[in-house]
Amino acid sequence: MNAPDKLAQLLSLTREPFPASTKAWITGSRPDLRVPVRDVALSNGEVVSLYDTSGPYTDPAAAIDVRRGLPELRAAWIDERGDTERYEGRLRQALDDGLKHEERDSPRIAQLRADAAALQRIPRRARSGGNVTQMHYARRGIVTPEMEYVALRENGKREWMAEYLADAQRERRLAGNGLGARLPAVITPEFVRDEVARGRAIIPANINHPEVEPMAIGRNFRVKINANIGNSAVTSSIEEEVEKMVWAIRWGADNVMDLSTGRHIHTTRDWILRNSPVPIGTVPLYQALEKVGGVAEDLTWALYRDTLIEQAEQGVDYFTIHAGLRLPFIHLTAQRRTGIVSRGGSIMAKWCIAHHQESFLYTHFEEICEIMKAYDVSFSLGDGLRPGSAADANDEAQFAELRTLGELTQLAWQHDVQTMIEGPGHVPMHMIQANMDEQLKHCHEAPFYTLGPLTIDIAPGYDHIASAIGAAMIGWMGTAMLCYVTPKEHLGLPDREDVKQGIVAYKIAAHAADVAKGHPGARARDDALSKARFEFRWTDQFNLGLDPDTAREFHDETLPKDASKVA
Amino acid sequence: MNAPDKLAQLLSLTREPFPASTKAWITGSRPDLRVPVRDVALSNGEVVSLYDTSGPYTDPAAAIDVRRGLPELRAAWIDERGDTERYEGRLRQALDDGLKHEERDSPRIAQLRADAAALQRIPRRARSGGNVTQMHYARRGIVTPEMEYVALRENGKREWMAEYLADAQRERRLAGNGLGARLPAVITPEFVRDEVARGRAIIPANINHPEVEPMAIGRNFRVKINANIGNSAVTSSIEEEVEKMVWAIRWGADNVMDLSTGRHIHTTRDWILRNSPVPIGTVPLYQALEKVGGVAEDLTWALYRDTLIEQAEQGVDYFTIHAGLRLPFIHLTAQRRTGIVSRGGSIMAKWCIAHHQESFLYTHFEEICEIMKAYDVSFSLGDGLRPGSAADANDEAQFAELRTLGELTQLAWQHDVQTMIEGPGHVPMHMIQANMDEQLKHCHEAPFYTLGPLTIDIAPGYDHIASAIGAAMIGWMGTAMLCYVTPKEHLGLPDREDVKQGIVAYKIAAHAADVAKGHPGARARDDALSKARFEFRWTDQFNLGLDPDTAREFHDETLPKDASKVA
Repeated sequence: MNAPDKLAQLLSLTREPFPASTKAWITGSRPDLRVPVRDVALSNGEVVSLYDTSGPYTDPAAAIDVRRGLPELRAAWIDERGDTERYEGRLRQALDDGLKHEERDSPRIAQLRADAAALQRIPRRARSGGNVTQMHYARRGIVTPEMEYVALRENGKREWMAEYLADAQRERRLAGNGLGARLPAVITPEFVRDEVARGRAIIPANINHPEVEPMAIGRNFRVKINANIGNSAVTSSIEEEVEKMVWAIRWGADNVMDLSTGRHIHTTRDWILRNSPVPIGTVPLYQALEKVGGVAEDLTWALYRDTLIEQAEQGVDYFTIHAGLRLPFIHLTAQRRTGIVSRGGSIMAKWCIAHHQESFLYTHFEEICEIMKAYDVSFSLGDGLRPGSAADANDEAQFAELRTLGELTQLAWQHDVQTMIEGPGHVPMHMIQANMDEQLKHCHEAPFYTLGPLTIDIAPGYDHIASAIGAAMIGWMGTAMLCYVTPKEHLGLPDREDVKQGIVAYKIAAHAADVAKGHPGARARDDALSKARFEFRWTDQFNLGLDPDTAREFHDETLPKDASKVA
Repeated sequence: MNAPDKLAQLLSLTREPFPASTKAWITGSRPDLRVPVRDVALSNGEVVSLYDTSGPYTDPAAAIDVRRGLPELRAAWIDERGDTERYEGRLRQALDDGLKHEERDSPRIAQLRADAAALQRIPRRARSGGNVTQMHYARRGIVTPEMEYVALRENGKREWMAEYLADAQRERRLAGNGLGARLPAVITPEFVRDEVARGRAIIPANINHPEVEPMAIGRNFRVKINANIGNSAVTSSIEEEVEKMVWAIRWGADNVMDLSTGRHIHTTRDWILRNSPVPIGTVPLYQALEKVGGVAEDLTWALYRDTLIEQAEQGVDYFTIHAGLRLPFIHLTAQRRTGIVSRGGSIMAKWCIAHHQESFLYTHFEEICEIMKAYDVSFSLGDGLRPGSAADANDEAQFAELRTLGELTQLAWQHDVQTMIEGPGHVPMHMIQANMDEQLKHCHEAPFYTLGPLTIDIAPGYDHIASAIGAAMIGWMGTAMLCYVTPKEHLGLPDREDVKQGIVAYKIAAHAADVAKGHPGARARDDALSKARFEFRWTDQFNLGLDPDTAREFHDETLPKDASKVA
């Protein structure tokens, strides 16, 4: 897989536009504010326009060189605000890539560094003492281009929907049940601003990630999904990592988390960020742990803080920070069936126990806020005590941490730092609503970002399905983003096909949630596909589906053509 | 696939016991009442005992000859009741197998007939005017061996669960929410009798299918799943059809519907019934339509009635009968996005429109009841007007038919005929509860048997997932049996792998529903698997899963062995 021709082949496959699809743009109040959509041309002359996460990769006209990175879409917007400065940035260290001293000058490393050279940027930060978060602007009444971009993107093109939403009786019958969501018919930039100001939505957009196509995570917007990638396997090349990200956004990942561990993680991150049109999240603790050779007890605040700055300068859009796992909560896990299963959680628990001290993430939380606001990195407050089995669902350990995440949310908001809250995990269906209720209550409607939840534990090899059930339900109830689970969950590292399977399962869950909530227009795509199905327009049916390739491949030409058509 | 050695190979693969598993039996009040379970031996010495649908096929000691059929488990029970008689039965006709005149003597047909010769049985029926349904017995206070069998089967072995259910605080926290279900800690034969007498559960068990291992379908029992098979493809051999059934029950199908169309359907059915330990359902209308060359208008009550008797004599356990699709309802589908998508529904609608007459299934309903009670065939009252798209969900056509099914249920119950009700189809999440509510209200708690429902329409190729979400939810709400959907839904005929994928997705949905309802002991298997996971007993984790083969295949030996283990 390391051969350049193999990679080129993968990338060219991934760059192919979807069948019958063309990239189009909705232009906003300024010519450099252009929101991409995917227009699908149907055989009957209709055009169905879809939300598009795939970035420039599916635009045949875009010249892409992964060794130089994507265009800096937001650079002018950030510049114009005049509240940031370029600076030399933190000095790069061999340790950042987890390298041992003797490896620093190996020819392979030298080559990797050289390949990444054109992706180096001079970092920006807020001018001294400043705050450059979208929340800060929103609270001062400023509608940023990012907010307008999000509004246009959430609305998409609506003209084509008219015929599908025209039957008033049908619309009444199918009217969604938002369960407390507030879903205006048309989303205005002002609505986005208000949601961000209240903390009910975030726009993850580090000032050092100007390549990002802004998107919103919040219960009053479309439900989003996140895909995890990472180079835990030493065998994968950096170019392969980029290709994994491109593959994930092709199938609809709204966000990607880079959970790389091991070597070259700094360089990997440069490559991913410079080539990613979607927000990138990380767990900085993973890299910090690499820097201390994997010994949790050796972690220090200084080293962790330095890692946050390192990643903020690179452009990471949100950090998972397990600051709610406090020393007094750890004993609450003693009676659990599966203890602490979050990797970040178990690292911090080890540190707290070894030092018998409160977590440095908790005690230094406001210092972390200072870093976040200088770059507009969003918090993804981690649930280090999430249940790892149905048996541990909704226990006191989990909810004690959740309440703490609520306190920390208030603190982050005092600094105008954008914040979302991570949630479980493993939760039987009848206990899901309680998770949403507790989160809304204690975290004041900060966006909820859940892993599944898995509704049962007995489906190894099929956990994408066991968790898509919980994800769809909690998405309906108000969760803003669903972190995908692949068929390899609990078993191994997902390959390319597993990533796709996980994403499609989660697009199903997210869309099911949008339809149930009554997100304006969400159902029109179903309706267009069903009409195509009823009229035996097979190609249109494939092309309107989440995965046209598979639908086409599965189609059996011997099927009767009119058996089910009568009225 | 027609070569005998290929089939032998398939069957021997399908007959292999699950890893670390042995077939065991729970013996009831008489020595010939032996309920099979699958005991899984764990590496720590524990034994986990599971509900087992796979019949004698996974018992290495069982001598199986598919050309002679399975042992007649229930023959003595039926005989002892002394209320049935053997009789010559209906004369076999070439038409039954959909054959044209000139094909009757072709060598291939002669061979198929010869192969099936040893599977012919002399049929039984109730003695003149009698009623041999389980409901009839139940209402007279008789606890049949079938009822006792069901009670033992639903309970299974419980001893091994003790350690998993011992933590009182955990049990309180995880206590299910039955949403109106009545789930006793231990199911007694008397409880089964009472549920059957009330019509809240059925035990599909035609007196001409003595090979069946009795099972119950009802909201107060474990949620069951149904898999469809059928030989629409003229290329499949009869032996392959048997193998499909064996494959389906291996993965957990509680029921199988034989939806064969085309030629040899009578002979196919003989082979399936004589070799099936699970109840077999059919849609007799499909065969009736074959007999009139596919011209719906040419159907007659006489021909349909004859087909019911033909299939009842063979031993079909339940009939899907679309008797609720009445002439006055058809115009209600005119404004639909996808009209009538049920095959049976569209056939009957064509007939009603062509003759401008009320459906003969409705007008002759009590005559049908007379046939059902003479053999103990259960009704599966079909939802011919189920929605074929989200746009048509919960419309007046659907609910008008549902109310009629409620009337027919009352009529069937007057004849002590066991009855369940079929349900949709395509229903967004927020409209699922209304389906359950309407069904409970109008059909008086007769078991609900739904196809999915699919929560969105845009997932061709992944409809097993889009529908498993709806299936899990409606299962929790009170649906008794979930008809599976495979990845090929809407696209083509499922192959062996599709059948497995559909079944596993539905086992997930059914189990998620059992856990949410709080079915006694359902969660213990999750707990045992999670304990194995936490203790890195990989093999036990695989073997306790729904699909040990896939879990093992996906396992990546390079995974860290202790990263997530701390407390």
